This record gives sequence, C-alpha cells and structure tokens, in this order.
Amino acid sequence: MKPLSQSRIVIIGLGLIGGSLARALRRALPDAAITGVGRDEAALQRALADDSITGYATHMRIACLHADVVVLGLPVLSIEAALREIQPVLPPQAVLTDVGSVKGEVIAAVQRVFGTVPARFVPGHPIAGSERSGYDASLASLFQGRKTILTPLAQTDPEALTLVRGLWQLTGAEVVDMSAEHHDAVLAATSHLPHLLAFALVDTLSHQGESEEIFRFAAGGFRDFTRIASSDPVMWRDIFLTNGEATVAVLDRFIGDLANVRQALLDKDAQALHDLCRRARESRARFLALLQNAPRPPESD
Amino acid sequence: MKPLSQSRIVIIGLGLIGGSLARALRRALPDAAITGVGRDEAALQRALADDSITGYATHMRIACLHADVVVLGLPVLSIEAALREIQPVLPPQAVLTDVGSVKGEVIAAVQRVFGTVPARFVPGHPIAGSERSGYDASLASLFQGRKTILTPLAQTDPEALTLVRGLWQLTGAEVVDMSAEHHDAVLAATSHLPHLLAFALVDTLSHQGESEEIFRFAAGGFRDFTRIASSDPVMWRDIFLTNGEATVAVLDRFIGDLANVRQALLDKDAQALHDLCRRARESRARFLALLQNAPRPPESD
Repeated sequence: MKPLSQSRIVIIGLGLIGGSLARALRRALPDAAITGVGRDEAALQRALADDSITGYATHMRIACLHADVVVLGLPVLSIEAALREIQPVLPPQAVLTDVGSVKGEVIAAVQRVFGTVPARFVPGHPIAGSERSGYDASLASLFQGRKTILTPLAQTDPEALTLVRGLWQLTGAEVVDMSAEHHDAVLAATSHLPHLLAFALVDTLSHQGESEEIFRFAAGGFRDFTRIASSDPVMWRDIFLTNGEATVAVLDRFIGDLANVRQALLDKDAQALHDLCRRARESRARFLALLQNAPRPPESD
Repeated sequence: MKPLSQSRIVIIGLGLIGGSLARALRRALPDAAITGVGRDEAALQRALADDSITGYATHMRIACLHADVVVLGLPVLSIEAALREIQPVLPPQAVLTDVGSVKGEVIAAVQRVFGTVPARFVPGHPIAGSERSGYDASLASLFQGRKTILTPLAQTDPEALTLVRGLWQLTGAEVVDMSAEHHDAVLAATSHLPHLLAFALVDTLSHQGESEEIFRFAAGGFRDFTRIASSDPVMWRDIFLTNGEATVAVLDRFIGDLANVRQALLDKDAQALHDLCRRARESRARFLALLQNAPRPPESD
C-alpha cells in the first residue's frame, strides 16, 4: 500500500467535514494529491484558491479512476448512490472510508453495492462538527484534540485500517476503534438525542401563539441549548432515519425520567428537584473534566 | 425620592447577579454608597478590594437601616425570610426591588410579609446569567444589551418604578414591563423548560451503565446543549418549585410534540423529520436575528 504522503486522496463531498479534512491533510501531506469532488463548482474553486485541495472534479467517477484513498464526506443516505457510481471504476487496491454519523447504515449500503463488505473499506466517524455546514465553515483544526471512531469489521484489512487511522491522526484526532453497533448506541445518546430535543424544542416554542415574544426574551442559555438546532437538516434527517431505533431507545429512557421530573414539579418535591439539579451538575463537571484536553472550536454566533 | 447618584443602595446577596449589579452600579454611580450583604465575608472582602462595593455588612438588618434602595439578589425561596428580617427596619420611603426568576412567588412572599404589596416594591428580573454562580463569576457587563423585565402592580408607585428602571438602564440593560403572570409563562418556555431538559438529560445519561464512556464520546454540541445543567442547584430548585405550573404546561406541549417525533422515527418518515429539522433551523435563525444586538457574555468552559 502506498504511503499517505505519496497518495492520491479523493474526498467526495467537500462540506464542513470533507472540507476540514482536506485542509488538514493538505497541510500534513504536502506531496499528496488531494482531489475534492462536489456539485458546487464555485465552492471547489474556492477550495483550490484556498490551497485546501490540489485539484477538483465534479464527476466522482473520473476522480476515483486513479485514487489510492477515497473518503466519502457525504450525508449517510447519499452514500449508497455515490458507491454505485464509483464502484465500477474504483481501483481494487484503493482504500475506501467514510465519515457518516451512523455506521450500521453505511456498512449496510456498502454491502448492498459491493455484495459484500470489501476488506479495504474502513468505516469511520470523526466526532467533531458545528451547527454550520458547507465548505465555507470548514477549518483545518476541526478535528484537533477530538476523537475519530473507526468501526472495522472482522474482514477489514489491517493495513487499510492502519492507513485510515494514520490519516485521522494527521488531522490531530485521537482514533478509537469500536463496533458499529456500539458506536450507533453511544452516538444516539450523546449526539442524536440532544439534536432531536433541540430541534423539537425550538419547533414547539415556535408554534406557540407568541413565539416572536418568547424568542425575544430568551437569553444566552437558550442560545447555547438550541445551537445544534441550526445544524444541517438533510444530514440530520438522514441520521434520524438510519439510527431511529437506537435514538428511540434512549429517547424512551429520557421520556420515562421526564415523567418523574414532571411529577416532582406537580408535587413541589424540593428534595427530588434539588437532587436532580445537583446530580446533573456533578455529572456535567465529570464530563467537562473528560473533555478538558479537547480545545473548543470557534463559535459561529 | 433621592436621585440614584446620591443614594444608599443595599444589595442583599452578592452572587452572580447581585455582584454583577454592584459592579455595574459602582461604575455608573461613583458617588452612591453601594453596600453588599452576604454571609460569606471573604467574598464581601474581595468585592470591597475589587471596588465593586463601597462597604459591606453580614447582617442585612443593619445594612438596611438607612437604605434608599434595597435590591434582593437572592434565590426565590430565600426572599421571604430576608423580607421578614428587614421589614421592621426598612425606612418607609426606601424602594425595594428583587431579581428573582419567578415573579408570582416573589410578589406572594412580599404580600405575606407586609400584609399587602407596598407601593415602593418593584418586582424585577434581569434576563442574563451564566451557568456559573457566586460573586467570583460576576461581571460589570453581564446586563449589557440584555433585557430586564419589571412586573409592576396596579399599586406600584410610578416614581419607584422609574427609579428601578433607571437603575437597570445604568447597567446597559433594556427595560421592559409586563405582568408577573405573563413573565412567568414566557420564562417557563424560554428558560425554565430548557434548564429542566438539560438537567434531566445529563441525569438520564449519567445513569446509563457506561456513562463514563458515553460522556467520553460527546462533543461540543453536547457541551453547549448541556451547559445550563451546570447552573446553581438551589436557584433552580427554587425556580422549579415556584414556577412548576407554567413549566409543566409547556413541558406537556413539548412531550406531546415529542410523541409525534418519536412516531416519525419509528415510521422512518423522511418528510416529517426533514420538515422538523428545517423548521427548527429557520426558527432559530429568526431567534438569532432578534438577539443579534445582544453581545455574548464570556464563556466559562
């Protein structure tokens, strides 16, 4: 397998994640060819002008003809169509990876297109992002100090796994392996449910008679709590469609706990309400201690 | 009524809000006497050393003997005991105000202590804060560009109202009047429910078997979403105890909407999920446009 430093790397989808990966790899691998693929040629031209890529293509099939590494930087439900497009031309030794937020579904799509999950396919997911989307929101530092989860299968080629691990390490990410199923359950709790709640809460409040007034008197806490409700709707539709089962499982636990909290409100149960606030505060302090080495990405509002 | 610039202003409770108010008034009113009252004498000494106050007392009764303005900077359920303590010595012409997050309960406490709601009592609530608490988190700029809501009653003395409005305007806040009932309903939606959800979500996740691992793979979105779960547990217990009815009303609307979202997840209803995400994103964009003149307070994690 060719070293990354001499590789032709193709990134299909040059949005927030694909664009940030291109920027980071371009810095780390000055001699690699980094080709961006997308439909928005103006964005690709900006990426070329920014020196985030060394070339671009608007047709993924042409870009993949001589690829050593192909990264699918697409929303989960756009991956299957892209795979069908590139599968006939993908060089047999090329390493294929993705950045999708739901690993079970991406592996299933690969299986449908290839008839089996090829040994050189390494499912991946960088745990980084922003409520902003598109190439113009991308940052070379997006993955710095963050985790990237890889979910290799039994048949995954160890050399391909090592190469993809190395690729993410070059971006400053800490790379962790786990099963796809475990990934999808963990992300349902830490990411998919919070996003669902933020989308749903903003939607509930905006349907109230005086939503304008309600938003007018909201403060910084509300802004932070609902920041993730500004995230890309297509990406999140795809996540909710493909990780619905795990998300409903943790949503049901949450709704069950919420019923107890509701009862404590009705009962004016000072002890229960105080305990809830205290426990949550302590848990979040533990969470912050875990995160403390991860730098915060720039704010966008 | 004495002008604020010559007044003896007593702030009972020198935490995040009381401390920030003291700092802002000290800058705006160099000739006023600004006395901080609290139980933590070390914090009061730091406030004096910082020139946030001109003097301090650990006994509120002594501080109030010659006060022109008394601001209660206490959690909602600590207000009644403080009122009982100062009521016998409060000069009859002194203006009394508070910063409590639930206006109905504070007005009821005043009524219980004084037998009626005095004309010189002006209920108030600055819509500003932070998940940090205590004097050391206070900032002179905390209220800059934020709203302060006053909820005067029919009997409220217009002069007292004008004085309290002027006091908040000196901190850089925009002052808005509304009824106490309306305030409590609006805040239930924009502040009390989001805090409740953040506390409850962190608590739900921390009770799962592998909570350590779950938090380990959470990213910036989760940190922002749950920031408010680090807020002061006593303050929030009091809010939930005293605004439980309005909070349950909006919680029930939210739980009802969540049931529809849950069904859309189970049905893999792409259109409904996409519409939810799109609508929420658009509503939040409108909210940010409303907020755009309000500067963001410094981040604390």
